[in-house]
Parts: sequence; structure tokens; C-alpha cells
Amino acid sequence: MTRFSTSQGFMGPFSHDGKASIAPYPPWHYAADFVTVECWVDPAAVEALLPPGLSLHPDERGLVTVSFVDWQACTDTGGELLDPVRAQYRECIVLASVQYEGKLMQYCPYIVVDQDTSLARGWALGYPKKIGSVWITRSMGVASVASPALEPGAIFAGTVAVKDRRIAEGHVKLTARADATAVTFGSRPIVALRHFPSMFEGHADQPAVFELVRLQAENAQAGPVWEGVANLNILDSPTELLSGLRPIRLGRGWRYSLAMTNRFNHLLRDLRELNQQDSIKGK
Amino acid sequence: MTRFSTSQGFMGPFSHDGKASIAPYPPWHYAADFVTVECWVDPAAVEALLPPGLSLHPDERGLVTVSFVDWQACTDTGGELLDPVRAQYRECIVLASVQYEGKLMQYCPYIVVDQDTSLARGWALGYPKKIGSVWITRSMGVASVASPALEPGAIFAGTVAVKDRRIAEGHVKLTARADATAVTFGSRPIVALRHFPSMFEGHADQPAVFELVRLQAENAQAGPVWEGVANLNILDSPTELLSGLRPIRLGRGWRYSLAMTNRFNHLLRDLRELNQQDSIKGK
Amino acid sequence: MTRFSTSQGFMGPFSHDGKASIAPYPPWHYAADFVTVECWVDPAAVEALLPPGLSLHPDERGLVTVSFVDWQACTDTGGELLDPVRAQYRECIVLASVQYEGKLMQYCPYIVVDQDTSLARGWALGYPKKIGSVWITRSMGVASVASPALEPGAIFAGTVAVKDRRIAEGHVKLTARADATAVTFGSRPIVALRHFPSMFEGHADQPAVFELVRLQAENAQAGPVWEGVANLNILDSPTELLSGLRPIRLGRGWRYSLAMTNRFNHLLRDLRELNQQDSIKGK
Amino acid sequence: MTRFSTSQGFMGPFSHDGKASIAPYPPWHYAADFVTVECWVDPAAVEALLPPGLSLHPDERGLVTVSFVDWQACTDTGGELLDPVRAQYRECIVLASVQYEGKLMQYCPYIVVDQDTSLARGWALGYPKKIGSVWITRSMGVASVASPALEPGAIFAGTVAVKDRRIAEGHVKLTARADATAVTFGSRPIVALRHFPSMFEGHADQPAVFELVRLQAENAQAGPVWEGVANLNILDSPTELLSGLRPIRLGRGWRYSLAMTNRFNHLLRDLRELNQQDSIKGK
Repeated sequence: MTRFSTSQGFMGPFSHDGKASIAPYPPWHYAADFVTVECWVDPAAVEALLPPGLSLHPDERGLVTVSFVDWQACTDTGGELLDPVRAQYRECIVLASVQYEGKLMQYCPYIVVDQDTSLARGWALGYPKKIGSVWITRSMGVASVASPALEPGAIFAGTVAVKDRRIAEGHVKLTARADATAVTFGSRPIVALRHFPSMFEGHADQPAVFELVRLQAENAQAGPVWEGVANLNILDSPTELLSGLRPIRLGRGWRYSLAMTNRFNHLLRDLRELNQQDSIKGK
Repeated sequence: MTRFSTSQGFMGPFSHDGKASIAPYPPWHYAADFVTVECWVDPAAVEALLPPGLSLHPDERGLVTVSFVDWQACTDTGGELLDPVRAQYRECIVLASVQYEGKLMQYCPYIVVDQDTSLARGWALGYPKKIGSVWITRSMGVASVASPALEPGAIFAGTVAVKDRRIAEGHVKLTARADATAVTFGSRPIVALRHFPSMFEGHADQPAVFELVRLQAENAQAGPVWEGVANLNILDSPTELLSGLRPIRLGRGWRYSLAMTNRFNHLLRDLRELNQQDSIKGK
Repeated sequence: MTRFSTSQGFMGPFSHDGKASIAPYPPWHYAADFVTVECWVDPAAVEALLPPGLSLHPDERGLVTVSFVDWQACTDTGGELLDPVRAQYRECIVLASVQYEGKLMQYCPYIVVDQDTSLARGWALGYPKKIGSVWITRSMGVASVASPALEPGAIFAGTVAVKDRRIAEGHVKLTARADATAVTFGSRPIVALRHFPSMFEGHADQPAVFELVRLQAENAQAGPVWEGVANLNILDSPTELLSGLRPIRLGRGWRYSLAMTNRFNHLLRDLRELNQQDSIKGK
Repeated sequence: MTRFSTSQGFMGPFSHDGKASIAPYPPWHYAADFVTVECWVDPAAVEALLPPGLSLHPDERGLVTVSFVDWQACTDTGGELLDPVRAQYRECIVLASVQYEGKLMQYCPYIVVDQDTSLARGWALGYPKKIGSVWITRSMGVASVASPALEPGAIFAGTVAVKDRRIAEGHVKLTARADATAVTFGSRPIVALRHFPSMFEGHADQPAVFELVRLQAENAQAGPVWEGVANLNILDSPTELLSGLRPIRLGRGWRYSLAMTNRFNHLLRDLRELNQQDSIKGK
């Protein structure tokens, strides 16, 4: 918690009780429903997005998961759940298989959420979040044509739009319970890029924060995982990088619920020095 | 389905395949999660809102339920579930106990939803819907401080805002499974007021449509109903009638899921003639 | 104003002071900035959208204007301007050249707005409005690269999205002041289709309201009209009829401001009887 | 511009052409319409919000301006104006009179915008922006009760809501052209607090970025400034610090347009070291 005068906050705005902050102080506890599509895209397109220290993993070159996620999150008190506009958000997250020092991890080059609280937490953690609109089919817990159950044949869809343009839509038609190879969130280490720009003249190429970090999601626990036949449609976009990650081949799809906690990051590499060296070489 | 030339639609816009309509043609199948607060308000305040033909029921004078509802809806094909922005909406619905010809029913004087498709269906059925913002605590199906389970002590909240103002917030703290007296949606007949104005000069007081109708929700089936301690806070508003329905006494709260289908209305009384008589009497 | 018990409203919700209504009682005064693209589309595509009584005008077969409009509206008191969320909305309106009894008019088969108050007024008047997202370049009244002035070379753009999909985007690059042939809003009579469905079993094809009406915009006054080179891009959509109205040829573009008042409609033809006859013929 | 591999961006997401970034690379050119209320609040409430290095200015203790602003912004190419969802946003900005090394400046403890691009630019510059909903009365350039002209008696209002709660509403009733003492945006130096948290265990009180900076708005040029009678209503909020800044006394109001450019910041003081010293002292 940053403190000065009689104000405090995890981030600004800073106020006497810290409640005005765009995001509360961690830990952040999460519960979520995931609809995930596994696919292979052009490995070179993934490689082009990787920060220093990361490279394609030989076993999973071009492997990407695109997940549409319904989140509910809160702090230790759970108080946000009484005012759910402060707890809930929807997300589309792209995770690419990479290696760091030979170890298989997932890196997030692109992610869209629909709430500023989540956006701010994401930046702090190293997720390059933007605001968009995400929708995900729900299972409502009653038998109805309007509510797919968690059973073979049920279809769960997700869509994502940014600045009034649909940029992706996917769905998973459940077939059976997944085996242990399902790539659920947190089943592999997540590596992220914390970045905050400098605003000083002449320092444009030298970010104030530029850290390769490993996220330390705690207690990540997925409920029963359903596997299914996956579909993913990436639409054209004049700006969004997702349009460069079109599936060459579709893999499996999954639908599951997950609980976890985020608290701290672990530093893998401070990239600022590296960046300055690059600058010196005359980019 | 209204048809002309080679166009059709349940409502406009009319197009060759009817898909451009603001709402699809019924039947409409729904699945929902309800958080409901039962309360008593000033009976006179309810009475002032009742159309001709309805009056307070002597057993439940001033009894009102305020429900915060997460809906997912579709037509027979279920196709909307593949593009869930067309299927999902959230709602705050106020239902007041009334009698029609001596029979206990519920009448809806006020309702807020967050999607135009639902708004249009509501106007067709007789619900005076407006667009607003509604949020409801969810149970995500995993154990987490961020996800209340359906068990004693769990709290489910709902909030509603119209035109950037919070107008109500409530919550239910679960205690036990409810008994058969729980006032779930559809457990009592719902009576509604279909209305559409005239726009002709001199006809301002003579609506084009002014029907007291009974809704024929089909196959309304509530899942397990949880009862709990209810709380409801109605906030000031310069425009919204909800601010005139503040609880004098709180009743029970409920949390449950529900499936149902809407298809037709049953006409109770055409109020147009009545209205003209009122006009004649010199209102 | 519909009145019953001690409640009233132009439309529902009905309350003691009428303020809870989704839209206030007319007259409605409007001020607007228009960005309009004139174009020709397949005449058959327009014809397919026309209700009984309207046909293509031989002089303007397939002529359509697509306008992106920034509106501010209020009632006589102007009170909405103190709470501008109740006064402002953005719109994309399609108007097709038609004839009624030999007279050149414009008919609106498709229109998108971003506020429920405008949606409700539109339905009452005969515009088949849906909720969407519309954006329009503004001239802010200061010299800046961020603010096009009303001068040759300035570009004004408009975009429209429905349910998270961009469906059209256009712009006008100003060249000079327009002459008197500019097709500004209200320069031709506007004919509309007031429609409200029946919800009674067996009456599905017999709308409760089905009126061909002429709008009586009062005091429509356009400020200086700029003409320019127009561009319009219609995007694919699985539902929206606009995707069937792609320009074969682009015409002129205009940018202007307008003031007007809406109060009443004039009935041209009650289409209910006609519709029943059609039904009898065995559609 | 941060660059790595073949990706780049002012901030993330990083892509080959930099267009996926949540905000484009500066310079950022802006045009705006301001509605500003000047008022005095409890000086201690302002003082409590000030970062190290700033204090109340003896001439303007507790003086605050609250502005509701309609912005249109773009980069050098102006390309965003063709897709105005990427150019436009609305803002409520609070600026408090402070001194830095004896010089009168304005500091921003609280600011709300409605677009993520603006949010990100703000965080980079040192504005503690959150997402909310802001509405501002417009002058549409035609004579109408629906469009106040820039003339005595005209009223311009602004409102701001965060997370579905209205938190402030104000308006200015124009009286005459303002004199040179009007506190327009940029007429005083703006001092800001750039902050980005650390996410490493044990470093919670040591932000990664914590800089007191002076903004270097270039070419700030206000058009004609109208002065008027101001009104401001601050509403209760469980979280937002604005509720602690209620006016003790209202000052003047202004309405004007402004153009400016943001490019760089000037560092006044790196507060990280200071913060660590505070930490050592055992806060």
C-alpha cells in the first residue's frame, strides 16, 4: 500500500481509507467460469510478440489458448460481493506457450476485460489489458433449452469486442470429462511483462518499469473440467493484434470453474538495462 | 409474426428473414437466477400505481417483492446462446400483490433491464421496462471467498441503477431451504398492463393499446429455493417511482434458479373504452 | 398522457408525476449535428422493406441516406439539459426515398440509437429503433488537429455498432456549402410505420397497432449545410438488415446542424385491416 | 515507444505496428469543451490528499475546480477522428490549488473518464483516472430550447457517476464573458503524481514508479471564456474521495473550449527514496 500524508492506496486515486483506489490492495481472490479454445497459430506470429527472455517452446510452437472467462473477485473481507459491480468482470485472455530458461510457461500477449478495476490489477500484475465487451454462455443451474447443462452435447460460447468491433468468437461443444492434460489456467506457470512508460523527453525508449515476472497464483484449483470440440473465429481488425493470431489448426476445448488468489509477482528479469543496451546499438 | 411485402418481424425493424427485429418471435425460453426481497410498503403507494381492474388484496396490502435477476433467454433453436450478447440480460423487477376479481395476483409497476431485446419483449408482454444497470452476486461453482455457495450464511446481493444513479440495493443472507410459501416467480398469476400510446392530435389520453392481461408463463419451474434474512435499501431519485416504495417492514429473502417459457397473453380487460369514459367525465 | 388511478405517463412506468415514464410527454424539442451519406442501393432491396401503401419513387429508385446524428432533446421546460444523460443520444438513421400516393417521401426501415428514452419515442412515432453504439466526429469550436472546422477539407465520420459488431462506418470530406438540393432531415416528408404486436394466441399475424403515418416535425430548421465527398462502408452482419443495403453508387455527403420539434403524427392508413385480408388469403 | 523482438507500443499490448497499444504514442492533441465550477472546500481535506513536496498555497487554501469536459483527441495523423470511438471521451477532473517550491500550481487528486485510452494516457501522465460515466450539456450550433447558446442565461451542466452511483452534478448559468482571472485548464502549471505499484513481496510500500511531475501541456489555447453562476452538488459515496470534498463556498463557473497538446513530463521529484525513508521510520 502506497502511503503519503494521510492518504493511501494500492494505486491512485489515493484517499484516507484507500477505498478510492482504482483497485484494492491484494490479495485478490477469484472465482471464475472458463470457456477455453486451444489452437495452433503461425509460430512466427507468436514469436514476434515475445519479450526478451522468452522464446517458443520446441514442444508447443505456436500453441495458444483463447479463454472467455466470467470472473468474480474480492479482497479478504469479501465486501465487494455486496456491491457486485465492484466484483464481477468478463475477460478474453490469450495465453501462448513459451519457454523461459527451458521451462514451459504461458505468456499473455493480449487480454480484454470490461471493468477498470480488473484492468488496473492486470497492469500491476503484467497483463496488457484493454477495455472491451465480452460475453459467455452460462449454465444457470436449471434444466432449460436456455441453459446448457454440464453434459455431452452442451455448447458454451464466448465473444469479444473492442471499440465496437467483434474481434473473436468461439465455442466448445462438450464431449466428456477432460483428462489431466487439459491446459487449465494456472496449470502451467504464467510469465508476464510488467511495463510502465517513461514520460520524460529523450527517455521514450526506456520504460520506467519493464520487468519479466512470474505470477504466483496461489491455491489455483479447477473444478471438474469438461473437454469438447472447439471452434474459434478471429475477425479482421484494423488495430487489434488478435487478428494476426488466426488458428492454423484447432485443438481441444474446455469448460471448467476455477478458484485462485493473486498476491505477489516473482521477478525473472529486469529488462530495463537490456532495453537501454538495445537503444545504444541504435535501434 | 407481422409480415408485409417480403419482410417480417415480431417487431421492427422488419427484414426478409425477421432477424433484424429488436426481439425474436416467441416462444421465449428463459433460465434465471433470482435474488428476491419481500417487503411491505405503504399500501396507498401501491394502490396509486394500479390500473383499473386491480386493487389491493386484503391479505397482502402493500406486499411487494423486489427481485434482482440474471437471465439467459433464447428461442426454440437456442441459437442465441452461441452469441450470448443476444441471450443474456440482468433485471430488477418489482411485483406487487394485487387482486383481480378477488384472485391474488402480482402486478409489475416497475422493472429495469440492461438489454433492448428484453426491453422490447417486456413492452409486448406488458412489463413497463426501462434500460438500467443491474448487478447480482453469483455462485460460481467453486469453493472460494469470491463465490458464495448455496448454504447457510452465504450472501447474495443485487443492485440497480437508472441513468447513472443507484436506486436500490438489497441482499439476502441464506439461512435454510425455503418452505412452499416462498413467493417465487410465477407461483402466483402475473397480471400486466400492455400499453402503447396514440400519437394523433387530440387522442393523447386515448392509448392505442391499453390492455389488462394475464401472462401465461409456461412450465415455470423453480429449482431448490433458499430462504434468508433480507435487506433492501431504496435510494432517492428525482424520477424513478421506486423511491416511493420504501420498505416499512422487511420480509423474507429468497435465492433460487428458475426456468420458464413465455408465449401468449390472456386478455383480462380492454381498458381503452374505460379510458375514454374517464376522459369524457372531464379529467 | 395516459392516466389511471393517481398515476400517469406518456408510456410506462406510470407514476404520480409521470416522471418515471421511459419517455416524457411531447412535445419533444431537438437539436442535432448530422453527418449524412447519400447513396444508391439495389432498388429491390429497398422495395422488399416497404410496408403497404409505399413504393419506390420513379425518380429516386434505391436512393438512401445514412445519417450519423448527435442529438440533444428536451421537453418544454428544458429540464433534461440539467441532467444530460436524459437529453443526449446518438443515432444512425437510414431513410429511403419512397412515394405515397405519388408524393416523394422518406421512409425509415432501420435506425439505431444509444438511449432508451429515444428508443421509446421512436417506437411511438414509428421508427423501428434498436439500441446500439454510434460515434460521430465533432467540431469542438477551437482550432486543433483534434477538431475539424466547418471548412473545405475537414472530415466528419460516423460509425454504428449493434450487439458488439460494427455494422457501418462512413465519412464526409467537406468541399463547399451545399445548394438547396441537399436532402436534409425534414426537407422531405417522413413516413413511418407505427407497429405494436398482439400477444394473444391466434392473433400473431394481426398487430395491435399497424399504422402508416406521416411525421409532423415542426419548425425543422437546418443551419448552414456543408456538402462533401462521401464514403460509406457497410459490414457483414448475421442479423442486421443494413448489410443488405450496400451502396452500388455513392452520392453526396452533408454535414449540418438542425433544430426541430415532434408532437403528433398524421394517420395515412390503418394497415390492420389490410393485414387481416392478407392473412385470409393464406400467407 | 517501447520496442522488443518485432513488437512495439507506447504501452501494452505490444504488436508489430504498435496499434494494439491501449493508448497511442504521443504527442496527443486535444480539443475540448469545459464546464468548470470553482469552489472552496475544507483545506484540511485537500491537504490530506497531497503528496510530498506539495502543500496548500496560502492564497488559495481549499480552492478546487471541478470540471466536466467533452474531449476529442488524436495523434499527429488525426486518424482517430475517422473512428471517433478511439478519439472521444468525457471526463470529470478535480484540480486543487497547491504550491510547489512556493509556486502556485494545480494538483489532480481525482479524475473520472469513460474510455480506456484516456485512462491509460492519464496513468502515464500522472492523473489517477478511473472509469465512470460523465455527461455534459452541449451547445449544438442551432437555435433551440434543446441547445443553449453561448449567451447570458444559458445553462451548461455536468454529471459524473462511478460504478452506477452519481457522485457529483454541477452547472453554470452564463452571465458574461470572463476576465483574465478565469482559472482555465493550463492557465496554471499542473503538477501530477506518476505512480505504479511494485508487486514484489516485501516491497508493497515501495512503488516502482513514484514521481512528482510537472505536465508540459503545449500550445494550450482557450477560446472565448464565459463566466457564470456556479452550482455543485456532491453526493454520498461509500468509496469515492469526492464525497470528502464538498463545497463550503461556491465560486465562479466557466464554460469554454480549449486546444492543447501533451507530449512529455518534467520531473520535479523522485519520491521513491523519500518513501523508503518513511518506511524505515516505521510508518
